[in-house]
Amino acid sequence: MSEESIKSYFDKVDSLKSSFISRLADAVAIPSISAEPERRPDVRRMGLWLESQLKELGATDIVLKDLGIQHDTADLPLPPIVLARYGTDPDKKNILIYGHYDVQPAQLEDGWNTDPFTLIEKDDVFYGRGATDDKGPVVAWLNMLQAHKELGLEIPVNLVFCFEGMEESGSLGLEELIIAEKDEYFKGVDAVCISDNYWLGTKHPVLTYGVRGCNYYSITIEGPAADLHSGLFGGVVHEPMIDLSHIFSKLVTPKGEILIPGIQEMVAPLTTAEDKLYDAINFDLEGFEGNIGSKTVIQDNVKDALQARWRNPSLSIHGVEGAFYGAGAKTVIPAKVIGKFSIRTVPDIESAKLDQIVIKYVEDIFATLGSKNKLKAELIHDGMYWVTDPHNWSFRAAAKATKAVWNVEPDYTREGGSIPITLSFQDVLKTSVILLPIGRGDDGAHSTNEKLDLVNYIQGTKTLGAYLHYLSQEEKDA
Amino acid sequence: MSEESIKSYFDKVDSLKSSFISRLADAVAIPSISAEPERRPDVRRMGLWLESQLKELGATDIVLKDLGIQHDTADLPLPPIVLARYGTDPDKKNILIYGHYDVQPAQLEDGWNTDPFTLIEKDDVFYGRGATDDKGPVVAWLNMLQAHKELGLEIPVNLVFCFEGMEESGSLGLEELIIAEKDEYFKGVDAVCISDNYWLGTKHPVLTYGVRGCNYYSITIEGPAADLHSGLFGGVVHEPMIDLSHIFSKLVTPKGEILIPGIQEMVAPLTTAEDKLYDAINFDLEGFEGNIGSKTVIQDNVKDALQARWRNPSLSIHGVEGAFYGAGAKTVIPAKVIGKFSIRTVPDIESAKLDQIVIKYVEDIFATLGSKNKLKAELIHDGMYWVTDPHNWSFRAAAKATKAVWNVEPDYTREGGSIPITLSFQDVLKTSVILLPIGRGDDGAHSTNEKLDLVNYIQGTKTLGAYLHYLSQEEKDA
Repeated sequence: MSEESIKSYFDKVDSLKSSFISRLADAVAIPSISAEPERRPDVRRMGLWLESQLKELGATDIVLKDLGIQHDTADLPLPPIVLARYGTDPDKKNILIYGHYDVQPAQLEDGWNTDPFTLIEKDDVFYGRGATDDKGPVVAWLNMLQAHKELGLEIPVNLVFCFEGMEESGSLGLEELIIAEKDEYFKGVDAVCISDNYWLGTKHPVLTYGVRGCNYYSITIEGPAADLHSGLFGGVVHEPMIDLSHIFSKLVTPKGEILIPGIQEMVAPLTTAEDKLYDAINFDLEGFEGNIGSKTVIQDNVKDALQARWRNPSLSIHGVEGAFYGAGAKTVIPAKVIGKFSIRTVPDIESAKLDQIVIKYVEDIFATLGSKNKLKAELIHDGMYWVTDPHNWSFRAAAKATKAVWNVEPDYTREGGSIPITLSFQDVLKTSVILLPIGRGDDGAHSTNEKLDLVNYIQGTKTLGAYLHYLSQEEKDA
Repeated sequence: MSEESIKSYFDKVDSLKSSFISRLADAVAIPSISAEPERRPDVRRMGLWLESQLKELGATDIVLKDLGIQHDTADLPLPPIVLARYGTDPDKKNILIYGHYDVQPAQLEDGWNTDPFTLIEKDDVFYGRGATDDKGPVVAWLNMLQAHKELGLEIPVNLVFCFEGMEESGSLGLEELIIAEKDEYFKGVDAVCISDNYWLGTKHPVLTYGVRGCNYYSITIEGPAADLHSGLFGGVVHEPMIDLSHIFSKLVTPKGEILIPGIQEMVAPLTTAEDKLYDAINFDLEGFEGNIGSKTVIQDNVKDALQARWRNPSLSIHGVEGAFYGAGAKTVIPAKVIGKFSIRTVPDIESAKLDQIVIKYVEDIFATLGSKNKLKAELIHDGMYWVTDPHNWSFRAAAKATKAVWNVEPDYTREGGSIPITLSFQDVLKTSVILLPIGRGDDGAHSTNEKLDLVNYIQGTKTLGAYLHYLSQEEKDA
């Protein structure tokens, strides 16, 4: 495949812009929120939309994998995993493309400026739930197929698509499917490409070689049989919310230092080589502050901040279930509160050992409080971290594609957030995985007014296509 | 008025039981939640229901005092204060009856066993929001009118009714009305009776001569411009929820000791005489545990527990606005959280001085955290404590009424909860106020499955009527 072919592909992508925008608008219009049971039919509808798109664009062997009923529910069906192929040439490499078609919850009242499920353009930026996470990238893969089809240009690798509808709700059923299809649908996969994360900042393209894991815990404290009036029982009863506040304050300092002993000791030491990687990155503290929208970064330099985000564990307190959460004043002593916190994990933290340390620590702290309430600390869910070699053949191809589209060398980043399925693909399929994002660091995934810049959408579509071309030429590592 | 009249009144009350139950059911069916703006029309509807009841029962000069638009809202009308008279004989004493017709929020999902706005009877107990707080007592006054009317029995005092619809939301507008009507509608009031609290336990009737006050505070901590993904920013950003947890933990110990210096110093010393009052009270630690539904009382003896509840300040943490409060796991770093706590006040704490101490303390603690977030601590509302002489003429009449109905001497109690309007009536009208409860200590006001026992409802109606009869005979104190 020549540089001319790539050039013709890029031109075609540019010329198809309005068609691509309309495809993204169609995708965003389906409120496929996996976390809301009443939206489950919309998630399924989104899967069917993908099926019809793939069919129209020439994909074959399309299968909607039925995952049955969601565990612990009476009759809530899981959305199907959409599998499809494009090309079966035994002389070509086989590349698995993963994406997800479900989205985070969103409603206008959360603070959106416009209806989250109507794609709205303003100043060359597209706003809508899923625009960047992950409908934009999924649709970009479809755009790539369309551009090749219209050009009559051959795709130089075989593609295996795997699009799930439960990523925002724990990827239920996906790992089992990967295991089941290892030697079936996914047989012979040479590399996996996932476009489901973001650039570090707003200007420089990146390739991502690691993600943190996440162990999410709950602390349940029970006292009175029912909520009490604080006038009647304040000062007389051990208040679960007071106990919880004391435990929360012993987990982490306001400067982000985890107070639970034994965790830092499991973190892989920072080598000089690794430390140096951080010096080359095109980002600054102002970039962080831009993402956050305020000057509340803990660290005073970007290198420390990036290491805190990528290679060090962190502990966040998310909130409290069962306490008063409304506006105004309510003089209640909540009878039972469930505190939620999570720890982001990195090499070489062992998940099971972490659980043991954390739960014992919480129990020990509670024992010192002298409270007569009852405590239960437990893991809600965990997902492992993942780190790979940022210079393997798949990354080399992606670097060339980035250079061809953006005319710069990519930055090599890790992610703070977990994408647990990355590790499953790597370990089960015994293959290399790359995270190749197209959106920017300020896209607001999981937040209000989620967006995707037009330039990222179009150049991203180019990058994904070019990656496949360079990948076909790149020699696999031993 | 003879003992026979009282006996005939008691018999009439017994015979009207089913009519009284149906009146309470009508009252509970109107979801008059003053804290929820969208329920404001229901609060008004409840006021109109009261008006029609009073009219039907022969009250005169009924006025629905329009209080205008709620401060700080665009167009939220305050519910009217319902005023009415019964009798204007210049030779009779004038007794002001206060109650409130609004209720606390309630929904089935909070943990109610039955619909909170349908009065449900089970084993001679009536469940429903407002059954005891304060629709039961308000309706008991109506029942008292009905019984007298049907008997053709004269009420030996003139009554002035004052029923408000914003008690659960700070009694907005009431104090101003008392001041405005001091020499008008409320001219010549000799005593005020409020039935809006509870027995100490479940067996022994009480008269109440004091209540704690309540200063309710919020702590607002703001950091990022919007909620963040904890994977992307955990460990990098100062988290408002972590800051708040640290501040919460510095307010009060799990054993209820307030950690803010300068408060205990303002508390009136316990005299030997006052200390002795506590020895006579019919209550025990098991009673407390029964109220609470668990063995989580802080004190190891009932006297200390009662003093903690009545004559000492306490600090309760109610919850957090803006953090994750749902079930399950959400990996969010809340951008802005508002912590809610309150302090119950007692003689001789000065409210304004307390605010100053508390807000400065919270600010000082925050300053030690080294957080770059922004903090604002402020008072949401306050209500003063009140203590009176438990042996004045109004209490003597109420003690006789209690003896006539229950055949025991009442216990003399104070309340942990605040009824700020008590103090306004006393101070503005220069009159004596009595709290004469009919419900039990385990009624669950402000909680789920709020209830009123049938026997309390019926005997309470008797007590309120008998109180008026004895009051007409009792000589006013100098």
